[in-house]
Amino acid sequence: MSELENGWIKRISVTLPSIEDNTADADRLERALAAILKTEMVDIDLSVLADLPELFRKGNYNLRCVLFKDHKKWRLSGISSDDTDRLTGLAVDLGTTTVVLRLLDLSTGHALAESSFINPQISIGPDILTRLHFAEKENGLCELNRLIIEGLNRAIAELCKSCKIEPSDIYLLSVAGNTSITHLFLGLNPRWIIREPYIPVTNRPGCISARELGIRVNKSAGVFIFPNTGSYFGGDLVAGILYSGLNRGENTSILVDVGTNAEVVLGNKNWLVACAGAAGPALEGGVTKMGMMAGPGVIDKVSVDSETGLFSIHTIEGLPPRGICGSGLIDLAAALFISGMIDIKGKFVLDACGTKLIEKDGVKHFVLVYAEESSEGFDLTISQADLDSLIRSKAAMHTILETIASYVGISLSELSTFYVAGTFGSLINPRSAITIGMMPDLPEGTYKSIGNSSLEGASMLLKNSGLIDEIDAIRKSITYIELNVNQDFMNRFSAARFIPHTNLSLFPSVNSART
Amino acid sequence: MSELENGWIKRISVTLPSIEDNTADADRLERALAAILKTEMVDIDLSVLADLPELFRKGNYNLRCVLFKDHKKWRLSGISSDDTDRLTGLAVDLGTTTVVLRLLDLSTGHALAESSFINPQISIGPDILTRLHFAEKENGLCELNRLIIEGLNRAIAELCKSCKIEPSDIYLLSVAGNTSITHLFLGLNPRWIIREPYIPVTNRPGCISARELGIRVNKSAGVFIFPNTGSYFGGDLVAGILYSGLNRGENTSILVDVGTNAEVVLGNKNWLVACAGAAGPALEGGVTKMGMMAGPGVIDKVSVDSETGLFSIHTIEGLPPRGICGSGLIDLAAALFISGMIDIKGKFVLDACGTKLIEKDGVKHFVLVYAEESSEGFDLTISQADLDSLIRSKAAMHTILETIASYVGISLSELSTFYVAGTFGSLINPRSAITIGMMPDLPEGTYKSIGNSSLEGASMLLKNSGLIDEIDAIRKSITYIELNVNQDFMNRFSAARFIPHTNLSLFPSVNSART
Repeated sequence: MSELENGWIKRISVTLPSIEDNTADADRLERALAAILKTEMVDIDLSVLADLPELFRKGNYNLRCVLFKDHKKWRLSGISSDDTDRLTGLAVDLGTTTVVLRLLDLSTGHALAESSFINPQISIGPDILTRLHFAEKENGLCELNRLIIEGLNRAIAELCKSCKIEPSDIYLLSVAGNTSITHLFLGLNPRWIIREPYIPVTNRPGCISARELGIRVNKSAGVFIFPNTGSYFGGDLVAGILYSGLNRGENTSILVDVGTNAEVVLGNKNWLVACAGAAGPALEGGVTKMGMMAGPGVIDKVSVDSETGLFSIHTIEGLPPRGICGSGLIDLAAALFISGMIDIKGKFVLDACGTKLIEKDGVKHFVLVYAEESSEGFDLTISQADLDSLIRSKAAMHTILETIASYVGISLSELSTFYVAGTFGSLINPRSAITIGMMPDLPEGTYKSIGNSSLEGASMLLKNSGLIDEIDAIRKSITYIELNVNQDFMNRFSAARFIPHTNLSLFPSVNSART
Repeated sequence: MSELENGWIKRISVTLPSIEDNTADADRLERALAAILKTEMVDIDLSVLADLPELFRKGNYNLRCVLFKDHKKWRLSGISSDDTDRLTGLAVDLGTTTVVLRLLDLSTGHALAESSFINPQISIGPDILTRLHFAEKENGLCELNRLIIEGLNRAIAELCKSCKIEPSDIYLLSVAGNTSITHLFLGLNPRWIIREPYIPVTNRPGCISARELGIRVNKSAGVFIFPNTGSYFGGDLVAGILYSGLNRGENTSILVDVGTNAEVVLGNKNWLVACAGAAGPALEGGVTKMGMMAGPGVIDKVSVDSETGLFSIHTIEGLPPRGICGSGLIDLAAALFISGMIDIKGKFVLDACGTKLIEKDGVKHFVLVYAEESSEGFDLTISQADLDSLIRSKAAMHTILETIASYVGISLSELSTFYVAGTFGSLINPRSAITIGMMPDLPEGTYKSIGNSSLEGASMLLKNSGLIDEIDAIRKSITYIELNVNQDFMNRFSAARFIPHTNLSLFPSVNSART
């Protein structure tokens, strides 16, 4: 079996001990590692030493070593004397809502299996802020830590079972999450993350012993935690940048992770500028009565026939509709606008809407799906208030994009690639997002959905040891700018509250489509 | 309170966080440590990070840090924001029979308390070989490890109680023991130590987390294990060399740790040569019926009036005699020889012994203490067989000394200091040891008893951070020579079986005293 050239597994072979050369087993191992790694600074866990004498003698002094290096030092994460042993690694996207795992063969880099589970901390609170406040109660931090570690252990056990391997066959973990979730995962107090001047305990946790964290994998396994740039720019985004390749581009591109919080990175191989801001819950389907996270039966696509004005919908897995997710909402708003049913302020146009506009409790609602076609038994509607909320969110998103671009002195139209990360990003129709003026009017080919970039970045590291320095370089090269809600920001925000924008010259394609 | 200049405690002070400088607490700490230590390679335990935010804010961003460095890297072993906190360290002499602890204040270097306990592994076997064989049984190693760790935890708890401190106030441990005991302490398999070519698992365990070893002290405390030079030259002797200063001397000196096994180091600031060999149990009082380890009521000194031929004895704590220890036996043999009661072959001279010589079961016994004066109610005697055994031991000891001296091409008479380590060493009368030809005929002022040099060396390290490199230098500069029991060795041994020696010119002072 041949290993990945740049992987974390290295083969060593040492001379047999004799009376003339009777130095300790550990010395022999360290000498061999020093020759390969060009350093004597390799942490060797006591548990590896405990196995060393037998494995050396079993393997006739040949071993495969799982090595790892963080920003500080090399660490030996496991040894094997048997070439048929499967040495695996686990990439983890540690999400606030969902945790996704991918098991990889460290020798070949092949993915073996993937699974996900709902972050059990949701039982404390769905949003991170509730959890951070809970962490300040007695034993609160301990409980939050226990929930995520136990959840992870259960998921690891199941994932291993499905692949017919043992958790002890996992020698490396690569974990990407936001700063707060990372702190809870490490059992570190997040108290000062949410208080001015917003200080995390650590930005670079580096590689920590799995055993110390209570993670049941190989006893000498190391857990690498993607570094964060500060309280509001986490390791998940650093992993995302790594995956997108933003930091290697000749031309300037942008990476946007849209959710309740929008995280944005702009840059190229020379510099990276990042910011994060609240885009509002509308984009995650969190405001309207019919809004919900993407899932079976949820409307993720909406279109309108510009001739007939008839709406057509698409649901996930083709089930009868039960609600709408963020991408569906954006499509819907774009369709309403294109068909003239809402005006440039996002207000319903009575004449154009006709009988689809009804009034409930004195509030206007547009009926997208009538009760008889819905799985819920009631009309799926969007109210004027829902639309207003969506427009505030899209305006906030656009303002954030404009602000960061103006900070570095470029125009959004100059972007060579617009990476959209996350589940929401993978569903979104760029044409609709452009139509409502949420995203800039770039050629559609410029938009690139990159899915779970946090998991992909974490997986990449398990396959390529050369990336560890790149991760540190990304972290270091990020200039994080605080989005000050000042007069300039408010002016931009006001201009962005029109569809697509007060300045129509920014959206030539929308302008021509509607007239 | 001012700290020891070269101690392990360093004070740091960092700038307060602000929106302009909102890097993580850990970054702030690392920056401060890097400035003091001139390296960024400082291991910071997760448990230290867990306490860091609160302590930083309590201490207004001033901390005392307990740092430690082994041959590889620095480690932060604890932090304190309160100047009244007592930061202590524990020196441990990990003996096969007795474990001795000394608690020190890391700020001042003052010893706070000392205690000792019988190594609980004695329940498995009094000698190390029995334990090493037991380690190969199922759970054997685990059990031996548990015994010593639990024994240590009990002793630490009691020692702390006596000083009114908590085990969590202990931030550093400095442990010196022989290679086998060290392996059992670390839970490492000693199997290959006792099989050709005698390979330890590790020679330089370095600094290990106390928590990982199961030692109940501060959760982030580090445990430094004195390195060994091989299977038969352990960290206890490296600590002993450090304490004796042998490795700093201009002139060549020798350090001898006498027991069942005699360990010998010869050298100066330029080189160190070591060997170890079996000297026989006679020297620890282990052969004769009345022989025993030093303790209350045990005869530790014997002398004879050369005019009257009357013997006088001294017991430990002045209690009625119940037996004799090694130093008493050597005194006795010397006295018998001086008074002509034994000849140069160590055989009883009937005429000279007179009524003191009795016969029991056909074997000649010399009565040192009559039944009525003994606490045991029977005669305390030494038999011809006992004497023969003692003489074999003293011959072995002398042969080892001669062999190592001849290996480096010097004469024993050239030694500038003769350090004698261990409890036995502190009791031994050099004059008697010279008289029987066990030790070389050097001026008595050349002999220097240094007591528990292993504990002293371990203590020194807790007071002086500069010594860590010296310890590594000692380890590296030792040339360990295997004592081959070849013809040359046997010739020397035969010559040394006479009292004081076949070659009387080696012992001019004895020669003149007797004639």
